[in-house]
Parts: sequence; C-alpha cells; structure tokens
Amino acid sequence: MTISFELKSTDGAARRGRISTAHGMINTPAFMPVGTAGTVKAMHPDSVALTGAQIILGNTYHLMLRPGAEQVAALGGLHKFMNWPGPILTDSGGFQVMSLADLRTIDEQGVVFKSHLDGSRHHLTPERAIEIQHLLDATITMVLDECTPFPATEDEAEHSMMRSMRWAERCKQAFVARPGYGLFGIVQGSVYPKLRQRSVTQLATTGFDGYAVGGLAVGEGQAAMLEVLEATLPSLPKDRPRYLMGVGRPSDIVGAVRRGIDMFDCVMPTRSGRTGQAFVRGGTLNIRNARHAGAEEPLDTACRCPACRGHSRAYLHHLFKANEMLGPMLLTWHNLQHYQDLMAELRQAIEAGRFEEVARRWEAAEQPEGPG
Amino acid sequence: MTISFELKSTDGAARRGRISTAHGMINTPAFMPVGTAGTVKAMHPDSVALTGAQIILGNTYHLMLRPGAEQVAALGGLHKFMNWPGPILTDSGGFQVMSLADLRTIDEQGVVFKSHLDGSRHHLTPERAIEIQHLLDATITMVLDECTPFPATEDEAEHSMMRSMRWAERCKQAFVARPGYGLFGIVQGSVYPKLRQRSVTQLATTGFDGYAVGGLAVGEGQAAMLEVLEATLPSLPKDRPRYLMGVGRPSDIVGAVRRGIDMFDCVMPTRSGRTGQAFVRGGTLNIRNARHAGAEEPLDTACRCPACRGHSRAYLHHLFKANEMLGPMLLTWHNLQHYQDLMAELRQAIEAGRFEEVARRWEAAEQPEGPG
Repeated sequence: MTISFELKSTDGAARRGRISTAHGMINTPAFMPVGTAGTVKAMHPDSVALTGAQIILGNTYHLMLRPGAEQVAALGGLHKFMNWPGPILTDSGGFQVMSLADLRTIDEQGVVFKSHLDGSRHHLTPERAIEIQHLLDATITMVLDECTPFPATEDEAEHSMMRSMRWAERCKQAFVARPGYGLFGIVQGSVYPKLRQRSVTQLATTGFDGYAVGGLAVGEGQAAMLEVLEATLPSLPKDRPRYLMGVGRPSDIVGAVRRGIDMFDCVMPTRSGRTGQAFVRGGTLNIRNARHAGAEEPLDTACRCPACRGHSRAYLHHLFKANEMLGPMLLTWHNLQHYQDLMAELRQAIEAGRFEEVARRWEAAEQPEGPG
Repeated sequence: MTISFELKSTDGAARRGRISTAHGMINTPAFMPVGTAGTVKAMHPDSVALTGAQIILGNTYHLMLRPGAEQVAALGGLHKFMNWPGPILTDSGGFQVMSLADLRTIDEQGVVFKSHLDGSRHHLTPERAIEIQHLLDATITMVLDECTPFPATEDEAEHSMMRSMRWAERCKQAFVARPGYGLFGIVQGSVYPKLRQRSVTQLATTGFDGYAVGGLAVGEGQAAMLEVLEATLPSLPKDRPRYLMGVGRPSDIVGAVRRGIDMFDCVMPTRSGRTGQAFVRGGTLNIRNARHAGAEEPLDTACRCPACRGHSRAYLHHLFKANEMLGPMLLTWHNLQHYQDLMAELRQAIEAGRFEEVARRWEAAEQPEGPG
C-alpha cells in the first residue's frame, strides 16, 4: 500500500533514500523539474528523463483551468497526456490561487477564485483539490493549504496554520488510498518554531505518506529558511520522505539536504534557462552578455548536456540574440542537467560519508552575482 | 575533386541518386530542412538527423549579418558552430536581399543593401557571396543570382537572366575548388522556355557541380512551375544533381521528382509547424482547431516522430492553446519527419520501378484546404 520510503544511508542529518511508487522509483535527495501546464517548458519529455530526473511536478491550478482535470482524466491521466510514465507530484493549486490576490476570497470552506484565463469562477476546497489530483492521476498528491503571507504576525501565522491543519485533515478523509500512490501533508507556521512544532505534531497524528515544509522561499531569506528547517525536521517522522516546496538555488538545496530534506522543486532552472541565465559550476552567467559573443568554450566543461557537448558559448549567445527557440531549449536542458548533477553528487557524497566536503564545494562555487 | 553524383536508378524521368561530399553522403531525391540563422528552428540538431535529413540549408543573408561570416569562420565554420557535421548547402543571400525592396539597389557590380537588424550598409557582389560561403564552410555553395520578379515581361526576364549568367561566371572564377565541396549554378528565365534554355546552355558551358532551378515558387502556380521544369530539365547535364529552390508542398515535390529534380528546400514544414499546421497522410490540419481538443488519436498513425508516438492530438492542441514551446517543437519535428518520409518513399519507389503508383497516392492525399 501507499508509497514506500527506504532510508539507505545518512551522513549527519543528510539522508540518502529511495521512494518506490506505482510509477517507478525515486532516488533521494531528488529535484523535481516543474511541468506547470503538462510540459516542462521547452523540453521533450524524453530529454527531461535523460537529465536524470525521476519525478516531475505538475500544477493543479493550471491544469484544472486548461485543459481541465476531467479532460485530462478522459484522456487517460496526466502521465499518458504528457507522455511522462514516471512519478508525478502535483501541488494542490493553493499557492497559485492565493497569489491571485484580488481575484480570490478564502473562508473555512475553501477558496473561490476567478480564472486568470477567462474570468470564470471556480471553487477550490480541500475535497475538490484531492478530487482534481485523483483525476490527474497524481502519484503524489499534496493537501490544500493556506499559504501564510510573509511577513505575518505570530497570531496571523497561528490562525493560518490551524486552518491548514483542519484542511489537511479533510484532505486525508477525501484521499482514496491506492497501492503506490501517496498523500503528503504540509507543515506551516511561518518563521515561528513553536507553530512549526504544533503543525508537525498535528500532521503526524493524522499520518501522511510524506511531509512537505511549506510557506518558505517567500522572502524570508536563506538563513531564516534554514532555521525553520532546523526547528521542524528533527521532529518529523524519520521513515517518511520530506519535501521542501519551491526551493531553490543550489546553495539552498545543499543547506536543506544537510538538515534532512529529501525532495525539492523549483522553477528556477527552467525559468532562468528561458531568459539566458545559466547555472555553471563557477556560479551563474547570462549568455546574452557581449563577452560571450566570441567564446569558443562550452557553458560548463564538466557538464554532459547537449548544450555543453555540442556548442560554444558563442553559439548560445547567437541563438539568444537572434531570438531562436533553440536558445531557451538548450539552456533549459543545461540548467536541469546542472540541478540533476548536483543531486547525484549529493547522493553519492552521503553514501560515501563525504557530504560536507561535496556540500562546501557547491556552496563555495555559488556566486549569485557571479561572472555575469 | 568536387562533389560526386552517382545515378543509381531511374523510373521515367525520376532519378534515384547519391551525392558524396566532404561532409557525408546524400541520398536523392532529398529534402533539405532550412536552418536560417544557424539553427533549424525549434529543433535540436540531433533531432533533425533523426528525421532522416542528410543535408540542411543555411542562409547567407542572415548569417552574414548575425553573427557575421568572419565570426562563424573564427568559430570553426558553420558545421561546428551549429553542431551539424553533415553537408550544408548555403544560398547566396540574393533572394533575401532582393526581397528587401526599398532597402537595396542593384547594378552590374552587385547589390547594396541595408541590414534589417541595424540599418548598417552592406555590399553583396558575386565575389563576396562566394567569399562568405567559403567563410561559412558551405559544403555546397550557390552562385549569386538576380531573382527575377514575377510577373516579368520577356524582355525584363532576359535582361535579368543574362545578368545572372554573368554573375554565375564571376562566381565560378571566385570559387576555390576543394575535394568534396561544390558550386551550383542557377537557371533563370522566368516562365519563358527559350530563356530557360539559353540559361541552361550558358551554365553548362561554364560548368558547375550541380544545377539549381531558381525564380520559381514565386506566385506562378504549380502548373506553370512544372511546365518550366519540363522545358528546362531535359537539357541539363544528366550526371549532375538538380535542385529546385524553395519548393514546396508535397505535391510540388512529387511533380518535380517526376520530371527529374533531385534536391529541394522549403520553410513550409518548419514554419507551418510553428503555427500549428500539420502535414499528415490525409492532407493538412490545424491543431488549434477546437475539434482536436478531445481527440485521443495521434496526428498520423503512420508516422514515427515523437509527437505521433507519444502524444494525442488533444495534447498537441492543449500545448498550442497554452502557448507552450513544446507545441511548435513537436509539430516542427512531425512536419520534418513527414517530408523525410515522403522522400524515402519516393526513393524506394524509384528503385522498385513503382514511382507513379506511390506518387499518385501522395498527390491524391493532398488536400490543401483539407479537414482543417
């Protein structure tokens, strides 16, 4: 029943594990590329798999509006629809809906919102969020939570967290357990350790197949984010995977793995790739920069993606200058490869008991305002 | 020396041949995908090869302006720059330059024009057109010709053709012969059989490694185009490849192969693919059409491209509705696969002495205003 999680080895708090699902296996720590609207933007699904990704994320909000959850179900589910036979985790739609600001109202029952596409009115409740994810055939379903704004007072954060806990309970009731499928709860509580603790206790009492840490990467900064993880992770059930939602830069991932996170998702590698920003072992660079116009070397000599095996920086620069689609295609592939290489190195390092050595190398290399 | 052409078999006037070049071999009749600015739009170069394409076309005009021919040369030539190790044919730039209308002036020496990118002034002479193609390292170089407008009086067409013949002579003088590289002349003369004949005689006297038929597919219609071929091809040297420039729809290609053409290029499969138009065995269809929203079948059950092997029409429809890059990526691949399948079937049919049977099937299937 459900999904299984095997903890293979640890190095400090860092964990090397394996999740088994109805759609295949996921080595952790794992990074999930984001496939918002049924496609990891600018990537053939085969290419996503070639980077080493074993699981991708789909967005309930986008898919429920277009083409519609019932439509995806009629077409055989999201795996078949987008030709990704591997595991898919879907978010609950809450994050996107709540960022609509003027277009939504929240009460205890759920969220009413207007579609950004056609203004049509939709109601997202915990029960409907689960139903939609069933229709999509998500391997891992996320509970609907209220995304606490940042900053929030402790009172605001408590009220918001408690509502999320009540919604999590309703999601658990609505979720139809099937072998190899799982439901994850989401820890809330903003930056307040006591609230995070209460949230963990509530969720663990209900019991979920995995636990996500939500409400982070919303402007609190890396130090505060890592403090929240330190206040949260030690009390989470050790035998279940832990997922840090919406994170992040390579150094964020390294810091979170160090504290015991197993799963990540972020639009950064794909979104950056489309605008010409590349993650390389020495930091980041913008391929549109004029200094790359004549550069014969590849983006990253240590990378085996098609952009690095086949092309010079000068060619990639040319593609972006000429607005050629192949530019975003190659840089997206490269950035996803970079993230998967990071995860593979972290997994090997944990197995070898060399986590700190490898982690520090990645942290030292990161120069967010780097060589440009 | 130069490129070699082996005529393997014929069926009526249709020819099954093989061109050997410094960068590899080309089975003819062949279709060349267009890689305007150093990329076949929306395609990884590996994917272009997977469709069966053995040669692609590059545009001198676009490359001379950005990134510049000297820049491509400094980066190792166009093959290395775009990571296409196979043969590349480059046009002379004349067609694009002359379609700039207000931005250019032509005299006996050549063309002066302003870049559409930055307004900078450029001079394209027969000698410079050859030099640029040398810098790009084109496998097959095209002479600079004056593209006779359509319609043109016989007098206008004669003057224009004669200038093209003088330019062809200058190109031949400027071209540096190297083993496995070739220079093609271009037959002009609008729709006037006598002018086409004079053009053929002039070019054959000078002697080229192949002969293109230019100035067609400019609005004269399929019947007039095929008449020009009938007036032109029988007197062209039989032991050299023949290339119909800028053509065309599948039925145009079938008609031209029937009359003895060996090579084609056209933006139609790539450009159509980007806008949602798909070539299928039953004709053409627009995937944006609402009737595809729920269609579970692939674009074309006979096609082995990733769009047809992996996805429903409903998914492709969704990608175009959602403006996802994967839509143009998949439809471009499909259309290029469709064109390469056409060429492979025509080659097999000529070998088997069944050209008319196969040709008529493709012609009958074409419904330009088809099922929509």
